Amino acid sequence: MKRTHNCGELNLTNVNQEVVLKGWIKKIRKMGQITFIDLRDFYGVTQIVIGENKQELINNLRPEYVISITGKVIERKSKNLEIATGEIEIDVENIELINKSKVTPFIIENEVEVSEEIRMEYRYLDLRRQKMQNNMVLRAKVNSIIRKEFEKDNFIEVETPYFGKSTPEGARDFLVPSRLNKNTFYALPQSPQLYKQLLMVSGFDKYYQIVRCFRDEDLRNDRQPEFTQLDMEMSFATAAEVQDQIEKVIKKIFLEVKGIDFKEKLIKMPFKEAIDMYGCDKPDIRFDLKLNTLTYIFAETQVKLFEGFKENNFAIRGICIEELLSKKQLEALTETARQKGFNNLAFAKYENQVWSGSIASSLSEDEKEKLIKQFNIKDKATILLNIGKYEKVSDMLGAVRNKVAELLSLTDPNDYKLLWIVDFPLYEWSDEKKSYVAAHNPFTMPNIKSIADFETNKEEAMADSYDLVLNGYELGSGGVRITDSEIQQRMFEAVGLNAETIEKNFGWFINAYKYGAPSHAGFAFGIDRVIMLLAHSEAIRDVIAFPKNSKGIDMMNNAPSFVEDKQLDELNLKIIKQD
Amino acid sequence: MKRTHNCGELNLTNVNQEVVLKGWIKKIRKMGQITFIDLRDFYGVTQIVIGENKQELINNLRPEYVISITGKVIERKSKNLEIATGEIEIDVENIELINKSKVTPFIIENEVEVSEEIRMEYRYLDLRRQKMQNNMVLRAKVNSIIRKEFEKDNFIEVETPYFGKSTPEGARDFLVPSRLNKNTFYALPQSPQLYKQLLMVSGFDKYYQIVRCFRDEDLRNDRQPEFTQLDMEMSFATAAEVQDQIEKVIKKIFLEVKGIDFKEKLIKMPFKEAIDMYGCDKPDIRFDLKLNTLTYIFAETQVKLFEGFKENNFAIRGICIEELLSKKQLEALTETARQKGFNNLAFAKYENQVWSGSIASSLSEDEKEKLIKQFNIKDKATILLNIGKYEKVSDMLGAVRNKVAELLSLTDPNDYKLLWIVDFPLYEWSDEKKSYVAAHNPFTMPNIKSIADFETNKEEAMADSYDLVLNGYELGSGGVRITDSEIQQRMFEAVGLNAETIEKNFGWFINAYKYGAPSHAGFAFGIDRVIMLLAHSEAIRDVIAFPKNSKGIDMMNNAPSFVEDKQLDELNLKIIKQD
Repeated sequence: MKRTHNCGELNLTNVNQEVVLKGWIKKIRKMGQITFIDLRDFYGVTQIVIGENKQELINNLRPEYVISITGKVIERKSKNLEIATGEIEIDVENIELINKSKVTPFIIENEVEVSEEIRMEYRYLDLRRQKMQNNMVLRAKVNSIIRKEFEKDNFIEVETPYFGKSTPEGARDFLVPSRLNKNTFYALPQSPQLYKQLLMVSGFDKYYQIVRCFRDEDLRNDRQPEFTQLDMEMSFATAAEVQDQIEKVIKKIFLEVKGIDFKEKLIKMPFKEAIDMYGCDKPDIRFDLKLNTLTYIFAETQVKLFEGFKENNFAIRGICIEELLSKKQLEALTETARQKGFNNLAFAKYENQVWSGSIASSLSEDEKEKLIKQFNIKDKATILLNIGKYEKVSDMLGAVRNKVAELLSLTDPNDYKLLWIVDFPLYEWSDEKKSYVAAHNPFTMPNIKSIADFETNKEEAMADSYDLVLNGYELGSGGVRITDSEIQQRMFEAVGLNAETIEKNFGWFINAYKYGAPSHAGFAFGIDRVIMLLAHSEAIRDVIAFPKNSKGIDMMNNAPSFVEDKQLDELNLKIIKQD
Repeated sequence: MKRTHNCGELNLTNVNQEVVLKGWIKKIRKMGQITFIDLRDFYGVTQIVIGENKQELINNLRPEYVISITGKVIERKSKNLEIATGEIEIDVENIELINKSKVTPFIIENEVEVSEEIRMEYRYLDLRRQKMQNNMVLRAKVNSIIRKEFEKDNFIEVETPYFGKSTPEGARDFLVPSRLNKNTFYALPQSPQLYKQLLMVSGFDKYYQIVRCFRDEDLRNDRQPEFTQLDMEMSFATAAEVQDQIEKVIKKIFLEVKGIDFKEKLIKMPFKEAIDMYGCDKPDIRFDLKLNTLTYIFAETQVKLFEGFKENNFAIRGICIEELLSKKQLEALTETARQKGFNNLAFAKYENQVWSGSIASSLSEDEKEKLIKQFNIKDKATILLNIGKYEKVSDMLGAVRNKVAELLSLTDPNDYKLLWIVDFPLYEWSDEKKSYVAAHNPFTMPNIKSIADFETNKEEAMADSYDLVLNGYELGSGGVRITDSEIQQRMFEAVGLNAETIEKNFGWFINAYKYGAPSHAGFAFGIDRVIMLLAHSEAIRDVIAFPKNSKGIDMMNNAPSFVEDKQLDELNLKIIKQD
């Protein structure tokens, strides 16, 4: 029998219709001589009534059995207005068993009391929960919005290869041994960066793609070996034009998914300012609590901790909370400071003109007065502060700031604050190489302010690159690419890449730019994280249909797994024996 | 200067406007004191006029240089109505050089006289040709139509993993060594088949995805190690419902891309009938030329070739062309027969009551009469025929039939004939294993007519599977899946899979079906091939942005390539030395 309706659509307008529904038994309830079944499918739940004289139909039926039912739609006496089908029920005529089910290892409900291991082992059951299905529907919707927006603006979707070329620079590639070309390997791209730039050289004006990327990184809790990103690039475009395009798309997502209409242009905050105010380059600006530099206050200080800051060129920085933090809260914050490499976190509390806390007794009246003025303190406050290298103490206080927000519930998960971080450093210091290396890759254009001296003034050199930040998460990043061969050459020299290395690693790519390259810029953002934030999920795994665990293992099928010797022989490979 | 327009949009309505265009110099022509530049970008070509007093602007400019021009739109005197911008030109004010270009290894035109090797080495230049860009635009458009149609029908796009599990059954997997789980390997999926079936177990009602697939097959001219397919699956659906859905989408593609409106339902031809009439399971039905069984005619024959057919249980089959084929044509067709394992191809020509050809002299009057009747021969004809096992001679004549169509230009590339082939064999004979194996995979449902005896009557057993065929190409295939554990068990036994092998290879998958599986069916079709046929391309490589050559090599970047020992060490792998 062909189903006539799904389990989410019948209502009072269907009363008296003969229908066929198919789905899973969510619940069976006996009420005297009558039995009710909640029948569930992808679209909803419909109540089935099995009358007194039909009880033999439900012999041996159990939850999660798949059945087909025929019956007539009738109006319910006690209506449930919380679900779409809550005003009707089906007076059953017949029930046909489609498939039985073993007892499931957990009940298929939105909230389940079960370890994530079990959920991942039985992912097909975990995905039967409406909450997970909603996440997948949300994901499909966001992908659809992205594609529609880019198509509307004449971006062309181009599918780039997954079998790419390995380059020893950058993060670690996943490799794919080639059987037909013995002893050689494809690399799975960490992003389609090089391909999309070549598409610009080819004259494709506006490119976009939703694409899988692969990165063989070390373990971290919420990291997946494969992830999905929106990738785009525009010819003859400036950074601002790319940002406008991305803003348009991300705003559209929020409008359609959350009903939130971002009317104003996103602010563009220079990297330096973000570090100065928030201690990080992906600030959560839903709450204020800015970092302050207090060095000037402690010029003549008696506070032991702050002695000698001048000789070390250290900075004293702090944040101020308009509340008196508890001992427990201070301990949690000190732990955050420790994780950032500080022994402890200094603090001073103020209430009713009285100071207390770790440094209170050493504070001079002048220092107290200046602190009150600096932070505009009214009745009470807790100041958290410390000394160290400017970057280090800022980084630590940035983490402390986020922890304060968590402890005091300063953020509303339904509040979304987007912003751009711009003017990133062109280089970063490599302790390993004892030199400056390209912060992103050596193909990112120096900022206009740095174009004259980026190879000499490395500490100050800025890139023409930008990140999109949402509620403390980096959603994605982009930049203007170097298309001028002279600037490219200066850049290579600045990061110490010699002609031979360049030729070996990027020769094929650099060569393309000799045949008439347009200026271009682009952007990429991680889809998984956007969905996670929109879905209020705790983990990226909850918005991926079949994710890996934190060890890179698919607990459902145990991939990766051992393979047969024959398979390795064909690849001319051997596992190195270990004892 | 920001560009105001692209090179494909200006027309008479823009006359007198000041514009900024950016693009590539396609051509430079001097006409006396005036110079014309054809400026090209992704959207078109616009003619730029450099007046007598502006000639210094074009000093050193050459084809494929990237420039920015400012100027005023003026009406052209000699209009070119073949291009959108052909009624106007730009009276130039200034030209700015954006980037130079080396002399390109081939001219950027639609038709190029250059080897495919060079085109692939300089793929970024090959993709600068409008023909190739059109292919990519077509591809993006088809993807977009597919997604829109499936979304409209409430299919949910779910992204399935690329890091899957290797199973020794089936075609060869590409492997990805895991560094974090030493000595184990992911497999890149040959299709998302198992994942999509699990999504049905999860209760996803209608799933679709445009997804990359990977198959490590041996060399063949037009095969790529990675390819893109449209993948879909529907719960509680029959084969006919899946076919309807796919028909709807493919018809929409033809309507939007080609303006062809397929009004009628596609015919569904049983596999056996296709073999009988066309000698293959992907018949090109744009032309007739059906295969005929002629065995009955030659019951008492003197034709030496046909002797002994009764003892061998051979069939005599042939096709008839209403033309007299030339010696050269016959030789070409004989070569086709040879490639199919036949020594030669018998033929008889008829014209004005006179018979000639290889078997003519041995034909009896009765045989001649019957041949004329069988093929309804009028004035003249060439009959091509041979003897052998029914399947073998049909297969050979199927190839000969296609070759005839090629030689006589019987097909119009703008004619598209779609059909379904249904009722495929459930098994195929494996010479290697000396037994019947599952034709597709052991999860395909037997046809209703075979459900009672599919494990005993293997030669006749049919599957509930179906292929979509276009102009002699299989576009894709699908089937109803086994969801009944009893039928599944019978199927495993029928193909000789024991409990241990099943558990090892599919245990995790089979287990899922114990938790309440709905009936379901699905389909997948290859996007690359559809685009190739729509684009009238000769090769699948022409509709893929960055393809591999027939050896699996990307000639642009030389992937796959050797990697550093360090990379292999990290994977605990070693290349087996060869001498």
